[in-house]
Amino acid sequence: MLSVKIAGTGWYLPERRVTNAELEERLGIAADWIARATGVHERRYVTNETSVSMATEAAQMALAEAGIRPADLDAIVFASSAPQQAIPCTATFIQRALAAPDGASTCFDINATCLSFPLALHTVAHLVASGAYRRVLLCSSEPASRSLNPAERESVALFGDAAAAVVLTPSAEGERSCLHHALFETYSSGAELTQIRGGGTLHHPNDPATTPDMNLFQMQGPAIFKQGSRLIEPFLERFFASLPWKRDQIDAVIPHHASRHALDLLTRKLGFTSDQIVDNLAVRGNCVSASIPLALAEAVHDRRIQRGHRVLLVGTAAGLTLGALALIF
Amino acid sequence: MLSVKIAGTGWYLPERRVTNAELEERLGIAADWIARATGVHERRYVTNETSVSMATEAAQMALAEAGIRPADLDAIVFASSAPQQAIPCTATFIQRALAAPDGASTCFDINATCLSFPLALHTVAHLVASGAYRRVLLCSSEPASRSLNPAERESVALFGDAAAAVVLTPSAEGERSCLHHALFETYSSGAELTQIRGGGTLHHPNDPATTPDMNLFQMQGPAIFKQGSRLIEPFLERFFASLPWKRDQIDAVIPHHASRHALDLLTRKLGFTSDQIVDNLAVRGNCVSASIPLALAEAVHDRRIQRGHRVLLVGTAAGLTLGALALIF
Repeated sequence: MLSVKIAGTGWYLPERRVTNAELEERLGIAADWIARATGVHERRYVTNETSVSMATEAAQMALAEAGIRPADLDAIVFASSAPQQAIPCTATFIQRALAAPDGASTCFDINATCLSFPLALHTVAHLVASGAYRRVLLCSSEPASRSLNPAERESVALFGDAAAAVVLTPSAEGERSCLHHALFETYSSGAELTQIRGGGTLHHPNDPATTPDMNLFQMQGPAIFKQGSRLIEPFLERFFASLPWKRDQIDAVIPHHASRHALDLLTRKLGFTSDQIVDNLAVRGNCVSASIPLALAEAVHDRRIQRGHRVLLVGTAAGLTLGALALIF
Repeated sequence: MLSVKIAGTGWYLPERRVTNAELEERLGIAADWIARATGVHERRYVTNETSVSMATEAAQMALAEAGIRPADLDAIVFASSAPQQAIPCTATFIQRALAAPDGASTCFDINATCLSFPLALHTVAHLVASGAYRRVLLCSSEPASRSLNPAERESVALFGDAAAAVVLTPSAEGERSCLHHALFETYSSGAELTQIRGGGTLHHPNDPATTPDMNLFQMQGPAIFKQGSRLIEPFLERFFASLPWKRDQIDAVIPHHASRHALDLLTRKLGFTSDQIVDNLAVRGNCVSASIPLALAEAVHDRRIQRGHRVLLVGTAAGLTLGALALIF
């Protein structure tokens, strides 16, 4: 148990709303099929926003809520699959956009695709609990729409853009807030089920053999769901075996918004009630690494999650990685 | 002080040696200028190797030395600026290439450009010391030559390709090995001094406005050296103020091989003797995030570094980030 606290949360949504009707008109994907197949009714798309600009807006909101100035941060972590550019790391640009002073913080990026946020939270919580850092900003930002393949209707229908951020500090004396326990397991037999094959050194952007398709999202939805739904039940058994909470004692379950089917599993098969689940899929879509911190931040601001609540973050990521993290908010 | 141990080290160098004479012939950059300006006489370039294949070779060597099977790992961390592809994270592909079993390890990437290795080592050491992970593989792999701009002679002359890996475990009872102290500071006023502007979401590979130049390395050598050399002296003062070692008590200094001038600073201005410094710049070049773990691994295998030795990892990274980490090997 790590004595750390989410001292502030924030998010950013691009102004541009994209409805199913727009997708039907633009791409010929039937609006009612989208709603039925994915559960998404609208999502946001970036126009001029970038990974860094969205992260910075979310960070400013989280810092204001925490009452912490950018100058007080000693680490800035970009927890995302969508870097601004190849070099340097994206957290560096967030330091600058926040006008956080030169030299006052350490900047680095952590990437575990859709589970980047809980994985980074678990990782960094150890450094905050030990005193290596005292005030850490974690940002997840995803302009997913930039990498969607219009020919792959399931992913086009599913994904949206967003950013979210939290400020992590030690808990003060007498505060119950803590990070309880986390578990992450990667099943690389599923590595090709969700991919952007380009964007790295294997299919370099300047390589004439790199095709535009390689730089776009590619998802084998049914195969991922099959692998994920087979693995998640025993995974959660293992996770709860080390946790002194029963499932019905959890106040809020924040799932990764992988898909409608993935969310339905939580109540259909995994022992949670729909009251426990924070679900904004219909209006946000799957926002990759931003999904979990966005749902968390919105639930905190709606007072759906309050201090002392038992919160579970849970989901799957490209990899295939399964993850769960329990905290007292 | 964290009671962790580097239980094994390994590296991989591409077979293809590239001499200054070859660069002179191919690119018209005078061989004697390269040697004089950069201190590099030869470097390696990938042919068919990839970020993942090099990391896997280095990992197998480190695992064999540690006497640890891939199945025993509970985390695999890719600490590098050069992912294999945009999604999923590169550590996932290393799990599979090592035939490490599905589900037995957590896979994620950490990026702090040239300081990715010491930053990831410091981060993960907290999780090993707390028992969250027991046996972690850290890999840094950089096919830098894929992103060099032939028109920028200083960086073409300087960079080489390599990978290196370590296995991190808790220290056994009675072992002195530990991670003592680390400090990282990012000065984002220098963010544009070392860049690859493409390869992310800002200048997407499919964006018609993304030019080939944007996907290549761009370095303002003199400006970086000016900023870095001004900052490194007070930075090391702060670092040593929290460390119970004097500079002359350090058995081996492993610098990031940023450039000849950067290495010369260590003896000229920063109070170290040339005997203390592990310097393979002449035959390896600057291997980005692989430079520090490569020099460490080669020094361990040469018995230049032995158990109980006091080791300092130190350097600068694009960002601009300064970093130093003290450990007892």
